[in-house]
Amino acid sequence: MAKLVVIRHGQSEANRDNVFTGWSDVPLTDLGYLQAHKAGTKIAQLKINFADVHTSYLKRAIITADIIMDELDQSYVPIHKTWRLNERHYGALRGRNKADVEREVGGKQLKVWRRSYSVVPPMLPKADTEERYQRIGIQIPRAESLEMTWQRMIPYWVDHIAPKLLAGKNQLIVAHGSTLRALIKYLDNISDEHITEVEVPNGKPIVYEFDNKLKIINKKTIG
Amino acid sequence: MAKLVVIRHGQSEANRDNVFTGWSDVPLTDLGYLQAHKAGTKIAQLKINFADVHTSYLKRAIITADIIMDELDQSYVPIHKTWRLNERHYGALRGRNKADVEREVGGKQLKVWRRSYSVVPPMLPKADTEERYQRIGIQIPRAESLEMTWQRMIPYWVDHIAPKLLAGKNQLIVAHGSTLRALIKYLDNISDEHITEVEVPNGKPIVYEFDNKLKIINKKTIG
Repeated sequence: MAKLVVIRHGQSEANRDNVFTGWSDVPLTDLGYLQAHKAGTKIAQLKINFADVHTSYLKRAIITADIIMDELDQSYVPIHKTWRLNERHYGALRGRNKADVEREVGGKQLKVWRRSYSVVPPMLPKADTEERYQRIGIQIPRAESLEMTWQRMIPYWVDHIAPKLLAGKNQLIVAHGSTLRALIKYLDNISDEHITEVEVPNGKPIVYEFDNKLKIINKKTIG
Repeated sequence: MAKLVVIRHGQSEANRDNVFTGWSDVPLTDLGYLQAHKAGTKIAQLKINFADVHTSYLKRAIITADIIMDELDQSYVPIHKTWRLNERHYGALRGRNKADVEREVGGKQLKVWRRSYSVVPPMLPKADTEERYQRIGIQIPRAESLEMTWQRMIPYWVDHIAPKLLAGKNQLIVAHGSTLRALIKYLDNISDEHITEVEVPNGKPIVYEFDNKLKIINKKTIG
């Protein structure tokens, strides 16, 4: 029996400004730092010893993870960083204000781009060439649907998280709105249609408890 | 050709209070946080892309590493945590004020315990049993000489840092006064006798530049 805590990073500058972000590496706001500290004190009350922490290549998630582990007094636990937990790549919507996009294309299209499972947003004309992705030999996508995010994220779950939970080791994932929607879709077996309604707020821990076959025996959101 | 930056953590509460620490997990002071940020901005001026960061199981070093990498805007770089980079274990001196110990045993004995290469300080009657060491199956020593620290630290250098430098990958080590004295002894080929005079201040980066055979071609302390 092991526990998994999943949490979305604290508020980022893009969250505050209602802007599409994706793989842009925007910092936390002051509120975001505060949410990370608060999440840490909440998780501390659960008295879980974590064996591993998993986060993305994006600092809003990494710094949230660092702060939580400091609040838990478990900074010594390994923090694994992977592009597979990166936010969904929002393509040409990146950096655009959501209200502006809504005025341009209408609320229905905006919701499709934000929440549908398989629709890919408008692509960037050229992929970025950031050092961090170059050095591990992956090409940055030019845009991703939630389905594409699911497809590149679940292999990480299968290879690096599930086996540890099966071995009884508690795990923490600090990630992003869309990667956590994809994970919740997988764990809670939510249909392509119903995932449209799932939102994951900043800084609210979700605690899963598994049996020794990795069946969920309890799930709750705290705080 | 690769670069290695080594740095001692920012001021800890024990540094401030002139107390022996070793494996006790004391936090940074406000000055220590400031030193970490300043070290980060200084290292940033070197324009080095790091492939890896290595630090200990102790939060004064881990948090210093987190802050430096944030200042470098390279938070995505893996931070490897190992007990082999822990501070020297100060045995029964741990938690004791250095001036009190000096009054008790005299300045000469104090210097031997602090700076000699092979003398082991008074041992703890029983080793601690902290979770973080239990989970990796090592026994916490009851006291260490600098020589013992050297012996458990250099294998990490040989196995996990030197091969990466040989492959041209820049490395950052954020560690402790005694582990860095041991490393400097090894790299600069300092005798057991002369290592007595080497001190490593908090938060001052030392930059080594190596050729492709791992011969030092340049060394400087910055800031």
